Amino acid sequence: MKVPVVRNILSANDRLAGENRQKLLGRRVCSVNIMASPGAGKTSLILRTAEELKGKLRLGVIEGDIASRVDADKVAAAGMPVVQINTGGTCHLDAPMVGAALEQLPLEEIDLLFIENVGNLICPVDFDLGTKASIVVSSIPEGDDKPYKYPGIFAAVDAVVLNKLDLAPYVPFDRAAFRGLVAGLNAKAPIFELSCSTGEGLAAWAEWLVALVARSREDA
Amino acid sequence: MKVPVVRNILSANDRLAGENRQKLLGRRVCSVNIMASPGAGKTSLILRTAEELKGKLRLGVIEGDIASRVDADKVAAAGMPVVQINTGGTCHLDAPMVGAALEQLPLEEIDLLFIENVGNLICPVDFDLGTKASIVVSSIPEGDDKPYKYPGIFAAVDAVVLNKLDLAPYVPFDRAAFRGLVAGLNAKAPIFELSCSTGEGLAAWAEWLVALVARSREDA
Repeated sequence: MKVPVVRNILSANDRLAGENRQKLLGRRVCSVNIMASPGAGKTSLILRTAEELKGKLRLGVIEGDIASRVDADKVAAAGMPVVQINTGGTCHLDAPMVGAALEQLPLEEIDLLFIENVGNLICPVDFDLGTKASIVVSSIPEGDDKPYKYPGIFAAVDAVVLNKLDLAPYVPFDRAAFRGLVAGLNAKAPIFELSCSTGEGLAAWAEWLVALVARSREDA
Repeated sequence: MKVPVVRNILSANDRLAGENRQKLLGRRVCSVNIMASPGAGKTSLILRTAEELKGKLRLGVIEGDIASRVDADKVAAAGMPVVQINTGGTCHLDAPMVGAALEQLPLEEIDLLFIENVGNLICPVDFDLGTKASIVVSSIPEGDDKPYKYPGIFAAVDAVVLNKLDLAPYVPFDRAAFRGLVAGLNAKAPIFELSCSTGEGLAAWAEWLVALVARSREDA
């Protein structure tokens, strides 16, 4: 998603997203908005990616949920700085929530900030958070028709992760059909097929993140 | 969910939900609002339940999606009367949409009407559609923590279906923990563990529906 440095102020959210973006660029923090259905594996992806990038990049996390802090506790246990946002029922994160969370993070110690959005394939798409990139995590048990049924999110993202590849032997899922649907909506987004259980496919995803961080530093 | 026949008019949605409810009761149609994450298996549950209830109850379906008609086509292929609602981006069905769909269905030929809501664990909860009952479909690969993270929907429903039991050997899922979380939020809702792939557990769920239809006829 190419975002101009100067833009019209379209709304309070967009204005605050711009402030988040400037702040993150200024501190040399690359940020990724992670969106998905409930249970697609957003937190597992963050935890596995942290292992994969250990010694290469310093990670931080903002966890978004309508309730609970179970994900933030898992991330904290893995040694990453983390802030939990409880939206109190709202079905997506927005730029003001993220701006408040940024105040609580040691940004000078973070190279790559993951923002785990609320589990929802619809509402988060319309709210720019000020991140460098946004991705959607889909998963094998959800079925290969998700891009067809939720086209907005697949069209909007910079990359697609297809998680739970280890379950492919047990459920019907046409990977070529899925890739075709994604390509029809979004010709540029790479698709990373992987399993956070087995680690298969994690390396290519991690490489993409390393390159994203490098590009983000060129913007700063 | 016990709904009084006469209620205060709280909003346009509630008023139209009341009209839907009266219309369905008058035509002796029992209706169920099916909510779930994307890919939990709402359509599969409808198709499997239709097989289970063949010769016992006549089914009809309203399919809700933000885009596409792939689910409605599957249901029509199974021989059920079906109307597709495309919300055009809205993250939930509402009573006016359902009211318009009811006009297109042969209600006198339907005993049990399934309304498949948009895939979303958050937004649909606040919109009464006028149905006799509402349920949530959760699934094994989504993880056992969903009631903890999306408490509103589990607290609101009349029954919980836990689908994809056939995947239990391949993913970590603590069924006792899941049952405990649901019971803590909703002491009355039965939990039906089942697999739409193997058919395991479908009979108990179908029995509950038959009893629901009988209770609905007593209301009429």
